[in-house]
Amino acid sequence: MSLVVVGSVAYDGVTTPAGKVDRMLGGACTYIALSASYFTPVEIVAVVGEDFAQADVDLLASRGIGLEGLERVPGKTFFWAGVYSQDMNDRETLTTDLNVFATFDPKLPASYKTRPYLMLGNIQPALQKTVRDQMESLRLVGGDTMNFWINDFRSELLETLKGWDFLLINDSEARLLSGESNLKRAAEKVRALGPEILVVKRGEYGATLFHDGGCFSLPGYLLDTLKDPTGAGDCFAGGFIGYLASRGVAAGAAPAAELARAVVYGSVMGSFCCEEFGVDRFRTLTRDDIEARFQEFQKLTAF
Amino acid sequence: MSLVVVGSVAYDGVTTPAGKVDRMLGGACTYIALSASYFTPVEIVAVVGEDFAQADVDLLASRGIGLEGLERVPGKTFFWAGVYSQDMNDRETLTTDLNVFATFDPKLPASYKTRPYLMLGNIQPALQKTVRDQMESLRLVGGDTMNFWINDFRSELLETLKGWDFLLINDSEARLLSGESNLKRAAEKVRALGPEILVVKRGEYGATLFHDGGCFSLPGYLLDTLKDPTGAGDCFAGGFIGYLASRGVAAGAAPAAELARAVVYGSVMGSFCCEEFGVDRFRTLTRDDIEARFQEFQKLTAF
Repeated sequence: MSLVVVGSVAYDGVTTPAGKVDRMLGGACTYIALSASYFTPVEIVAVVGEDFAQADVDLLASRGIGLEGLERVPGKTFFWAGVYSQDMNDRETLTTDLNVFATFDPKLPASYKTRPYLMLGNIQPALQKTVRDQMESLRLVGGDTMNFWINDFRSELLETLKGWDFLLINDSEARLLSGESNLKRAAEKVRALGPEILVVKRGEYGATLFHDGGCFSLPGYLLDTLKDPTGAGDCFAGGFIGYLASRGVAAGAAPAAELARAVVYGSVMGSFCCEEFGVDRFRTLTRDDIEARFQEFQKLTAF
Repeated sequence: MSLVVVGSVAYDGVTTPAGKVDRMLGGACTYIALSASYFTPVEIVAVVGEDFAQADVDLLASRGIGLEGLERVPGKTFFWAGVYSQDMNDRETLTTDLNVFATFDPKLPASYKTRPYLMLGNIQPALQKTVRDQMESLRLVGGDTMNFWINDFRSELLETLKGWDFLLINDSEARLLSGESNLKRAAEKVRALGPEILVVKRGEYGATLFHDGGCFSLPGYLLDTLKDPTGAGDCFAGGFIGYLASRGVAAGAAPAAELARAVVYGSVMGSFCCEEFGVDRFRTLTRDDIEARFQEFQKLTAF
């Protein structure tokens, strides 16, 4: 079933111990949409500038992603640049040029409003709420956020979270949002803010799911090659919601087994993302590759 | 089948966000032996001073632990004190009084020499080798080490590792020992040094096993209460080797499924250890508690 993804489409400059790319396609919406497109029909809402390359439009279109909501306006596309640490667990931002993204006002094409699934990438919480409020018949809605919004836009974020079924954040964000250092108690407090389904992403260590039916933990995939972790969390989100949308899972009635499998597919997609710079892995990735890695996760974790 | 454990028996002073205990029973050998005693007969080799309390002897004896190799010499028992960080992932050492441990020269009672299982706690690598060389008919031998020995006693450590079937270390130690930041490649290099079976402990994030038959990863248990992580790694080791000894598993023929279950039992024992200060959890823990938590791990990880 159809999924609408809202967030940034950007250009990134990335330096990791494995190399350096000065400018490549990036942005949360891009990664989420590409990842989810392996599971379900996807349409995006985003803004780019006049410099946005046709080759990048073509890549998104080649994955069947609906681009009616991709607005092109005068100015330049959002640009971010950063450098990763030796172990790639930390990164330092060198440049953030918001450009046309500074005045991003998500406009939903009329046809999007009746779509059943909505994934809100990491943008200003009040904007996330505006989009959510325009949707008319959602089966499942949720998104991502970050420490900046948790610290400086807390009241907007709390309003926004009330309308979400799921939230994907990392463990430091879960602790920051809840004020609890114990992850289990942090999860309880975060879930009390609205999202019944919480996925705590833990980078190379995997992910943990909390919901009414209990908990599920998956360890991280052991990568042979880690070139660039940019976008891995967004690809996780894309695999997670993409899988749930493909199964028609609805809020309030999400089977534990489907949620657990969605976490595994999220981890599969996040792991592939890291194998090449930017979105490059998605130029060759097949659904068979995805199923093979899902099986690898089963072998890695069975006892 | 019988397991011999060699290492420190000590007194610890510990401060964590959950409280402070000035002096309590501790030491790697103590934790390993208590943990393993739930699975298999255990005998220890260690040294204590004249101040070692009868109540502490009684606790070890109450778990059926053989104490013929617990030497008592003039002087004071090894004392360590430290303070944990707010999230308990780091700690600072305040005091290390080696006392009688400074001249520890492990003496194996004659009856120990034919035991089939040997676990060498974290002591000077050359001493670990001396003990191993005295054993006559081992089915499985291995142990633990730390960054200090890896950095400053590397050649002794490399000699020692040649004679081990398994090694338990944490991920930063695996990276330090191998010079590799990628965990999979680090594991390959470490295993090439001797131990066919490598368990990388990752604290709250779980553990990963590498052996000839492949990999196995287990996420961390989600603790309701974390009071004191001291000894958790040693309790992991005790559960791991204790379970393998109980199953008669031998080097070169360790079934993948048994090794994976040993990692789960190790994680179970490490998680219980953290619930109370020092060894207190072992005063009430039952084998039924252990089996119940093993089942919880199955529920937490199944998909």
